[in-house]
Amino acid sequence: MPLPSTPRIPYGGDYNPEQWEEAVWDADFAAFDLARIDLLTVGVFTWALTQPDEDTYDLSVLERIIDRAHAEGRMVCLATGTAAVPPWLAAKYPDVCRTDFEGRRHVYGVRHNACTSSANFRRLSTAVARRIAERFAGHPAVVAWHIGNEYGGLCYCELCAAEFRIWLRERYVTLDRLNDAWNTTFWSHRYTDWDQIVPPNILSEHWRGPNHTAFQGVTLDYHRFNTDNILRSFQDEKDAIREFSDLPVTTNMMAIYRHLDYHRWAPHLDFASWDNYPTDGSPVSRMALGHALMRGLKDGQPFWLMEQTPTMTATRDFNPVKRPGVMRLWSWQAIAHGSDSVLFFQMRHSRGASEKYHGAILNHAGRTDTRAFREVAQLGAELEAVGDRMLGSRTPARVAVLFDWDSWWALEITDGHSRAVGYEKQMVAYHEALWQAGAVLDVVPVGADLSGYDVVVAPFLHLLRGDIAARLEEVARRGGTVLTTVMSARVDEDDNAFLMDVPGPLGALTGIRVDETDSLPPDQTNTVVLSRVGEPEVRTRGRHVFDVVQTQRAETVGVYTEDFYAGTPAVTRNAFGEGSGWYVATCLDQDGVDWVVRHVLAEQNLLGPFADVRDLEHTTRVIDGRRYEFVLNHRSDQVRVPAPWSGTDLLSGRAVVAGEEFVVEPTGVVVVEVR
Amino acid sequence: MPLPSTPRIPYGGDYNPEQWEEAVWDADFAAFDLARIDLLTVGVFTWALTQPDEDTYDLSVLERIIDRAHAEGRMVCLATGTAAVPPWLAAKYPDVCRTDFEGRRHVYGVRHNACTSSANFRRLSTAVARRIAERFAGHPAVVAWHIGNEYGGLCYCELCAAEFRIWLRERYVTLDRLNDAWNTTFWSHRYTDWDQIVPPNILSEHWRGPNHTAFQGVTLDYHRFNTDNILRSFQDEKDAIREFSDLPVTTNMMAIYRHLDYHRWAPHLDFASWDNYPTDGSPVSRMALGHALMRGLKDGQPFWLMEQTPTMTATRDFNPVKRPGVMRLWSWQAIAHGSDSVLFFQMRHSRGASEKYHGAILNHAGRTDTRAFREVAQLGAELEAVGDRMLGSRTPARVAVLFDWDSWWALEITDGHSRAVGYEKQMVAYHEALWQAGAVLDVVPVGADLSGYDVVVAPFLHLLRGDIAARLEEVARRGGTVLTTVMSARVDEDDNAFLMDVPGPLGALTGIRVDETDSLPPDQTNTVVLSRVGEPEVRTRGRHVFDVVQTQRAETVGVYTEDFYAGTPAVTRNAFGEGSGWYVATCLDQDGVDWVVRHVLAEQNLLGPFADVRDLEHTTRVIDGRRYEFVLNHRSDQVRVPAPWSGTDLLSGRAVVAGEEFVVEPTGVVVVEVR
Amino acid sequence: MPLPSTPRIPYGGDYNPEQWEEAVWDADFAAFDLARIDLLTVGVFTWALTQPDEDTYDLSVLERIIDRAHAEGRMVCLATGTAAVPPWLAAKYPDVCRTDFEGRRHVYGVRHNACTSSANFRRLSTAVARRIAERFAGHPAVVAWHIGNEYGGLCYCELCAAEFRIWLRERYVTLDRLNDAWNTTFWSHRYTDWDQIVPPNILSEHWRGPNHTAFQGVTLDYHRFNTDNILRSFQDEKDAIREFSDLPVTTNMMAIYRHLDYHRWAPHLDFASWDNYPTDGSPVSRMALGHALMRGLKDGQPFWLMEQTPTMTATRDFNPVKRPGVMRLWSWQAIAHGSDSVLFFQMRHSRGASEKYHGAILNHAGRTDTRAFREVAQLGAELEAVGDRMLGSRTPARVAVLFDWDSWWALEITDGHSRAVGYEKQMVAYHEALWQAGAVLDVVPVGADLSGYDVVVAPFLHLLRGDIAARLEEVARRGGTVLTTVMSARVDEDDNAFLMDVPGPLGALTGIRVDETDSLPPDQTNTVVLSRVGEPEVRTRGRHVFDVVQTQRAETVGVYTEDFYAGTPAVTRNAFGEGSGWYVATCLDQDGVDWVVRHVLAEQNLLGPFADVRDLEHTTRVIDGRRYEFVLNHRSDQVRVPAPWSGTDLLSGRAVVAGEEFVVEPTGVVVVEVR
Repeated sequence: MPLPSTPRIPYGGDYNPEQWEEAVWDADFAAFDLARIDLLTVGVFTWALTQPDEDTYDLSVLERIIDRAHAEGRMVCLATGTAAVPPWLAAKYPDVCRTDFEGRRHVYGVRHNACTSSANFRRLSTAVARRIAERFAGHPAVVAWHIGNEYGGLCYCELCAAEFRIWLRERYVTLDRLNDAWNTTFWSHRYTDWDQIVPPNILSEHWRGPNHTAFQGVTLDYHRFNTDNILRSFQDEKDAIREFSDLPVTTNMMAIYRHLDYHRWAPHLDFASWDNYPTDGSPVSRMALGHALMRGLKDGQPFWLMEQTPTMTATRDFNPVKRPGVMRLWSWQAIAHGSDSVLFFQMRHSRGASEKYHGAILNHAGRTDTRAFREVAQLGAELEAVGDRMLGSRTPARVAVLFDWDSWWALEITDGHSRAVGYEKQMVAYHEALWQAGAVLDVVPVGADLSGYDVVVAPFLHLLRGDIAARLEEVARRGGTVLTTVMSARVDEDDNAFLMDVPGPLGALTGIRVDETDSLPPDQTNTVVLSRVGEPEVRTRGRHVFDVVQTQRAETVGVYTEDFYAGTPAVTRNAFGEGSGWYVATCLDQDGVDWVVRHVLAEQNLLGPFADVRDLEHTTRVIDGRRYEFVLNHRSDQVRVPAPWSGTDLLSGRAVVAGEEFVVEPTGVVVVEVR
Repeated sequence: MPLPSTPRIPYGGDYNPEQWEEAVWDADFAAFDLARIDLLTVGVFTWALTQPDEDTYDLSVLERIIDRAHAEGRMVCLATGTAAVPPWLAAKYPDVCRTDFEGRRHVYGVRHNACTSSANFRRLSTAVARRIAERFAGHPAVVAWHIGNEYGGLCYCELCAAEFRIWLRERYVTLDRLNDAWNTTFWSHRYTDWDQIVPPNILSEHWRGPNHTAFQGVTLDYHRFNTDNILRSFQDEKDAIREFSDLPVTTNMMAIYRHLDYHRWAPHLDFASWDNYPTDGSPVSRMALGHALMRGLKDGQPFWLMEQTPTMTATRDFNPVKRPGVMRLWSWQAIAHGSDSVLFFQMRHSRGASEKYHGAILNHAGRTDTRAFREVAQLGAELEAVGDRMLGSRTPARVAVLFDWDSWWALEITDGHSRAVGYEKQMVAYHEALWQAGAVLDVVPVGADLSGYDVVVAPFLHLLRGDIAARLEEVARRGGTVLTTVMSARVDEDDNAFLMDVPGPLGALTGIRVDETDSLPPDQTNTVVLSRVGEPEVRTRGRHVFDVVQTQRAETVGVYTEDFYAGTPAVTRNAFGEGSGWYVATCLDQDGVDWVVRHVLAEQNLLGPFADVRDLEHTTRVIDGRRYEFVLNHRSDQVRVPAPWSGTDLLSGRAVVAGEEFVVEPTGVVVVEVR
Repeated sequence: MPLPSTPRIPYGGDYNPEQWEEAVWDADFAAFDLARIDLLTVGVFTWALTQPDEDTYDLSVLERIIDRAHAEGRMVCLATGTAAVPPWLAAKYPDVCRTDFEGRRHVYGVRHNACTSSANFRRLSTAVARRIAERFAGHPAVVAWHIGNEYGGLCYCELCAAEFRIWLRERYVTLDRLNDAWNTTFWSHRYTDWDQIVPPNILSEHWRGPNHTAFQGVTLDYHRFNTDNILRSFQDEKDAIREFSDLPVTTNMMAIYRHLDYHRWAPHLDFASWDNYPTDGSPVSRMALGHALMRGLKDGQPFWLMEQTPTMTATRDFNPVKRPGVMRLWSWQAIAHGSDSVLFFQMRHSRGASEKYHGAILNHAGRTDTRAFREVAQLGAELEAVGDRMLGSRTPARVAVLFDWDSWWALEITDGHSRAVGYEKQMVAYHEALWQAGAVLDVVPVGADLSGYDVVVAPFLHLLRGDIAARLEEVARRGGTVLTTVMSARVDEDDNAFLMDVPGPLGALTGIRVDETDSLPPDQTNTVVLSRVGEPEVRTRGRHVFDVVQTQRAETVGVYTEDFYAGTPAVTRNAFGEGSGWYVATCLDQDGVDWVVRHVLAEQNLLGPFADVRDLEHTTRVIDGRRYEFVLNHRSDQVRVPAPWSGTDLLSGRAVVAGEEFVVEPTGVVVVEVR
């Protein structure tokens, strides 16, 4: 299914006029005109208004909002509004409230806490979605449907226990198969009745917290079940919408979000969308990773940036404002990586409750002469000028990064070796290295077709599913380069260890054997020396976990220099077929990861044109023979670099000539339409 | 109502002879004689003795204690003993036990944990108070009534939910008004029935903890409700006492205590009293702030220091003993700031349970030849010598500090900007500056009459109630100086943002406009340069939150030097009427606060006589034309300063002559009766 | 009762073939042959297999395992398998699941969490133990019985409340006696009915956590009750075994484990055994303390090392592998201190669940050519060569260390002074000093016969029971040296303070009086100068708690140099009878403890032969006139020392000659059979 049909990159975002007197709406639309805002996300938290009690629906508020938007020439992304239940619903049907990891049944409050195992929730959320779809399906303003909001979390109630058992029966069919998968002979856990199975929380298999479980199999399956169980609720509403409308349906996701395996959701989304609220201190490249992950959900189809703050967040401990130029820079970054929209949360500062200090386009005084509004208006003009030319364009990547929720979960709920590794942290480190090197890349699931890639980076791929080992071998066999690391290929789909030398099914590709893995507290390291013929040696550090490697056929690229395994390999490269398999045996510091990744890219001639300029981001989008080269300067100084291509910078109108230097200002963006 | 009638500053404190054989009592009274102890607080935890079951009262123990006290010539402050319920009561009526923030109903244990919504608790606590009042109302030893003990905490049980709904109906009358106050259109929270409302805890609106709520309005009102609900229980008992006695009634409070808004309690107390257990590491001035806050409850009427430890506490992680001289110094500090008593917890070390290592006048060996006892006896002699001359005297303050529980709660439960600000920490910093500068000051509620003050300091006054903005303007208009800060004047009484430029209703007085407020983690600062014509520039640092200020009419007194708002104002002064309104736009380090506060005081000629000597405390009490100047040396070295007045040091008997130096020893105290 | 009858030091450990196809068993036994493994611990977690439902027992799996073991010439230590209940049992009888400190009833999961107050658990665990004993009592492979596994933890359910009340009635007989013991007049806690008493947890007497209680008496008694209540379950099973077998019975303990007072268990064990999993960063000597504590349970009878990991643990945050030689070194350390076995957990890496990365003799690939296996096989050969010669041998100690769970609990649940002291930490420090000094020592309960010791070290003996004070005096009176410290002798058996000068009943022996004890945060210290005539002064630091000491008859050995008690004694020595009583008035840094301990040992000529070589461990075992001197090198360099005795190193076969140097390699071990 194509993306929503829009005349240009839609610009705008969450709009909640139901919280205001209608007199305020006039001021809103006057401001929207100033800022070229053409799309409004409406109704995300309106259930209490659209259904004031079980027997009454009142769509008049939505009607007024959507009609006014239409009259003012705006498009609407229309929400079903089910992300927060109304008070009457929780009071009447307490089972819609979740039971938390501590086993506590909650009562009414906050948002995003409905239990999707509750038949009452499913029935009522579907019904309200159906009413809204029925009423607004043909409305000319509506261009897309928005279900729920930032789905997530887990529930551990009795209803979930029952649904979990059904899910398990479907997965395992017999208890014998389940007992085998979970290795229940260990610690006398052999189940003899499905009803003996309870959700894994602090009252059952867990100790200390959600990552400390006595039975990894139970906990891993509960994460999978939870993903599917919440997805079912999304699908309920989507089915209801489909009774009346064929417009594209999405929900706003959170990209690098641990609790939901978005790869299981991908087939059910018409298009992907997400909310980009980077944590302070995380690298700029992490946002790029988020964009690529979202783009990877639908085989490279563009996605929507559904939310970002124009200025500041509110729920963090500290909520800095975005510095001048940064909102524009990050908006263009989203487009550079495949977004076909730039949307904000939200249009006007809330008056009260928990987001009253969350940034918005209009502040509490409603001013349009603030720095925030001026920057929004400037970007609006810029996007209007760019028009529709890059809508639907694709990223021509030859590098793939494997991202895998099963490995994330399995790695982090595992007892043993080191609790400090952290899947996300390691993925961000490997992606950062690729990003700094300017690799044009996709982030894909392990089931993706790898035949189009010259480099496949699969770090910390702890759990191997299906035929991924064979397909990675195939990448190398035909001349590609595969990179994997310590803690990879340790367990099968059931989280049981491979009964073979580490790294299990990747042993042939990597050409090594590991008999023991050491681990140390985070402040204790082992210096690693990296070397290639004809290059100076480089010293970096290993940390957390340390495979003691015996090379079988691989060559040694880096060695430990300390402890009883001093002199043994820390990084190896194995010639395999026409290509190679690299292995990094420890958690290298970022400079070590950079070194390895650049050697891998260089092997395939895939270093980007600006790989030597730190924090100068580059990527590419193509469509119908047109090529757009994005250059984004995340540095605080001006950059001059020679252009690898000739064309026109769409933002400044200036010509860019191959071989001649062009300038990118601090927080500046250049988008070259290549000639 | 006047304070209890005592012949001099009453000296003594908590006395629990019911824990001992009567033979020990003889030793107690012999020691009391040595230490000139003349007042005993009796019966604070005696409910299990006075009422061994629901149908039996046994006042014989109290009788023996009070009769013996009287026979020995001591006064008694008599407690109703309801601060800890007896085991039989909790077993028989489990609803008297509280439900905590986690939603857990407690069972019997500890103390201070009765739910004051429980009709059983209210009935039984009132009944035992009535019995005691009836029996001892006319007893010649009894001079005051002491209800409960260190009231506090919160309960979240079903009974509280019901009481909360009643309280809300009284406050808001209609659900529409409540929905508007709480801004419930946000996140689909519109209530359609009062019974849908539940207490705000971790099972409903909260996440992470008591300061993290999705609906500030609910949580803020729950704090107000809780204050009133506990107060009602105090009032129950007071009413019962009043049936038999007109003697003054108090309860021992905790001064800077977050959970109860003592300003709501003040009208119901005959006189204020509090327990002074400073935390190690807190500044000495924080005790002075506590004293002034308590004195401010009853319009400047003296209060009682109901408890302090002679030596050490027990419940802290580390419990240092008070160094030699410190107990005396801090006792005189209490008097200097308006205490008309010096009382200890307790007379004799407990034999067992949680306070067995809490300091007491007599240790486990019952010795009177210890350092602790000797210091107690010396102070007793000193107080006896001073007699009644300063009883009832007042503090002639021209500086007021606004202290406001609503702002405390609202600021700290708010999402957004910075979680690190901390109301108490900021209030302590501004008060510390005033204290070091020797300002004679009152700490008052926002509803207080401000017409007598030349300087009003209102830092972090986040929530504005009533006509406070107008009354602050009035202070300046008639020539006074008002000082306020970042995070002030942000929300109205319902915790909804003012829909105007920051600082809202204080915009006219401060002459500035703020469009955006930046925030940073605590270890990131912005250097601020402060300057006044004819003075050297001073560099300090801003932290946590940073208003980006546009001066409208104000002059710039300090500027930021870093980040994108370098060069913009960090401190401003606005001429207003005959006076001025100062604004501090960030959390300045202490030296910056000191600089601003001293300039504010200097503007009104209110710097104290010893403002240049750090930690040399000065304040004043006056009565009937007599004036007492207190000078307290919290330094470890001797101080010599010129006397601004002539008179006699009541403690040494030495003459003090204006213009001539006098000496204050380390931990020393000088109390000059001015001639 | 003697230890299990074995032909030599049994070698092997936990074997769980029930988790594997029988084809794997062949490989197991082939490996056992290579490693000289002759004893297998079988059945520790087999309940779900041996009893698949309430009415069915199936011992066929155990049968096959034990028969195969026997056929292969191995001995079996046979477990009853009750340490983890099967799922059907928890589902059928939810009362077998524990209620935690937070008051939460758990459901099925993890292990070690049966409530031993549950009649269902007691009935069913006893029944399965009886069945197993009945079936295998005469089996020729079985040499010992193993009940449960690492007993521990606490439960707070209603059944435990009822059992606690019964236990209290037996202890106190009358409520008056209980009220007196718990000092319930404090805080109105006087109980008038046994049923008013509830377990002390976060819902009743506790705040902040398990060490923060309002009533120490209740919490202390709950620890004692819990020890007895879990012990009863052990005894249930032992009684069932005794119906069929007279073989020795044990359970694997955890040595320095806070939750169970093993001294109360000791009479019920036929022999002691424990699992040695040292925490990274703890000193090597802590393992020696564990061994000595276990040996002390049965009056010096050797114990079994029931578990240790051959390589790494799994449940820690970081799980380093044991460095080369370390597994052997620590195995010999166990023997040196009285172990008559060397056993591992486990034979083969688990395939899945929480211990899949826990080290084992065979890794997931089942290899015997790994470093881990090679070291295991080398040690097996060494042990085989040593044979039976030192089985049953004893440690000829003249130094006793008092270890006391009552003091551990009482000290750490007490409010007051400092929460940072830590009983275990202090005991480890005093033992470390003795260990470095090479003292041959016993670790004994306060009820032990002290008549054979020349030095008794009793640090932090907070609670004094029985006649221990008199018996310590007797040690000194007859010429011995007693060493005690701050925080000792503070409370009686009920945790009520002694109503006398500190250190209470030890005042005469120590010759001092303490009126006040200061305390400071851990980073604040007081420099202490230690001096003896003819020796240079030594400077160390006191920390945490600081008794202000007045010597009555004692001499001053060390003094504080700071704060108001500068110059007063920090360490004293009192001549008493023919001997002396030393007192250390603060928590000295390790070098200070070392200094004191060495002076105490020197007073009795008990410094070891290698006291000057750090980390060169020495101890002795004797039997039937044979003497074995163990020298273990925990350093990373080779050591050469003069031999104090002549004989033969059993491991190398080399002669050792008195007065001549011998060599101990890094991680090396020398076991001299003295001629």
